[in-house]
Amino acid sequence: MSDTNSFPEHVQFLKGEIEKAFQKLPLDHSPDYLYDSIKYILKGRGKRLRPILVHFAGQPFNADPEDLMKVAVAVELLHNFTLVHDDIMDKDEMRHGQPAVHKQWDDATAILAGDGLFVLSQLMLSGLSPFVHQRFNEVTLAVCEGQGMDKEFENDPSISMGHYLIMIGKKTGALLGLCAELGALIGNAAKENAHHLFEFGLNLGLAFQVQDDYLEIFGYESSMGKSLGSDIRAGKQTALTILAKEKDEKKWHAFIKDNQSISAYQSFFASNGIKAETEKVIQHYIEKAKEGLDVIPKEKRRDLNQFTTMILNRTY
Amino acid sequence: MSDTNSFPEHVQFLKGEIEKAFQKLPLDHSPDYLYDSIKYILKGRGKRLRPILVHFAGQPFNADPEDLMKVAVAVELLHNFTLVHDDIMDKDEMRHGQPAVHKQWDDATAILAGDGLFVLSQLMLSGLSPFVHQRFNEVTLAVCEGQGMDKEFENDPSISMGHYLIMIGKKTGALLGLCAELGALIGNAAKENAHHLFEFGLNLGLAFQVQDDYLEIFGYESSMGKSLGSDIRAGKQTALTILAKEKDEKKWHAFIKDNQSISAYQSFFASNGIKAETEKVIQHYIEKAKEGLDVIPKEKRRDLNQFTTMILNRTY
Repeated sequence: MSDTNSFPEHVQFLKGEIEKAFQKLPLDHSPDYLYDSIKYILKGRGKRLRPILVHFAGQPFNADPEDLMKVAVAVELLHNFTLVHDDIMDKDEMRHGQPAVHKQWDDATAILAGDGLFVLSQLMLSGLSPFVHQRFNEVTLAVCEGQGMDKEFENDPSISMGHYLIMIGKKTGALLGLCAELGALIGNAAKENAHHLFEFGLNLGLAFQVQDDYLEIFGYESSMGKSLGSDIRAGKQTALTILAKEKDEKKWHAFIKDNQSISAYQSFFASNGIKAETEKVIQHYIEKAKEGLDVIPKEKRRDLNQFTTMILNRTY
Repeated sequence: MSDTNSFPEHVQFLKGEIEKAFQKLPLDHSPDYLYDSIKYILKGRGKRLRPILVHFAGQPFNADPEDLMKVAVAVELLHNFTLVHDDIMDKDEMRHGQPAVHKQWDDATAILAGDGLFVLSQLMLSGLSPFVHQRFNEVTLAVCEGQGMDKEFENDPSISMGHYLIMIGKKTGALLGLCAELGALIGNAAKENAHHLFEFGLNLGLAFQVQDDYLEIFGYESSMGKSLGSDIRAGKQTALTILAKEKDEKKWHAFIKDNQSISAYQSFFASNGIKAETEKVIQHYIEKAKEGLDVIPKEKRRDLNQFTTMILNRTY
């Protein structure tokens, strides 16, 4: 793509190429028990943000597009593997606009489909350098740790903001970090520079996830996938509830002992400074993310900067 | 180990070294939700046959013992990953002398523990050649396919012996094949020769699994982990039931429509030639397995021959 193309065109072009690469996956095999569910998952309406990030991170380092695409497909398969298993564990019933695999079939089918996706993700890396394999799996271990923390937190009301940030860093941030790092590594980046790209993705993921919690309360209902406040009303801990509890536990418990409307939550968080504090946290991680890009010459940072803006500038 | 050591001493020595290697795995981390279940699984009484096979296959090719141990631990972690997930899928409640993870905790814990074991297995291969990674994951995909076939077969009474052999080849044989192949590859074996070692393990696995079905009927109850005939009475398809059905479907269905004793099964299989035919199948795969060892000089085959004898000469 030449520099004269607009960013949205670049994103659309990459999405098209990524879908073509997915079409080429060797999935027309038996048994159907394994491959039908894998094909079903991959036709879900995922945004493909992670493979797009791989490409944007690789291009400033002159990475080979074919190798980048292998990694791009690998991280998206990895991401889908974690979603399929998490949906069973968390009993979430919808995913990417269609029933989750374990609802469409059953738990056994979904467990095996997730395993299959994970193996396919590893096979996409065939022939790439051992360090790429290593980082891929180190980060996958962090993602598993993040999911384990998330499960622990479900039954633990004493979680601090520090714990929460570690959890979402492992569960969400690390994978975005991996996308950026591997893009750079496939190119000509030294390991230390590639690590800065990991930090970029990690901090972007933290900003994104805290923002997700924020928009759950302060977003526009019409553009959210679910109704505002549904997580918080279901008793899930989010950045806002944890900050509110840390600030004044008694006041918070007095507030939530009644079933509150979304506008009551909005006023509570606004008047107690939680809204502003959350905005500060998001801004902090956006700044940190941008620092990670310092290793890339300014004139080659455009797409990664616009990518950052794109995924953070949602009002939904 | 010098050649003057007896085979059982060699096995005991390797088992000890393998346990030491397991002790060194980095499992004292948080969250407990992930690592407690992984530690629980690894203290189960597994026989460690697969890591032992890796070492025996690597030694004739002068493989580096440390690299062999990495692969040995990797295949055992991989094996345990498949057991943990299969036990959820098949609702099996006991494993290696203790409650299965999903019984000890719950399905969610077991799904994540399996995922964690699989990632750890990949990390054990860090720094080894890309071809080792590739074969490791190609075979893991075959194992997933085998499990998918097994699930399909549960509800399909029309399975032929051919289908069944493909299924157990993928589900059980391929992993033994991988152990032998990777041992050789870590050493100085060319890819083609290493592939003969894969064939050795694959066929050994087929012989082993058909023998397992055989001993379920003709073994000694006292030394079996479960009572004789329990699989067959639960309606599971085994090599013997499939052969009986293929030979004379009407006669077989007339026989099983009543609840039969184990001795009635024994007489049925013996008088209808199924016992002899099963013995022939086992013998066929033992011969084929041994052919795979032809690429190793005779004087270096001792341990692999004795390993074959060891795992087949059980009367339980």
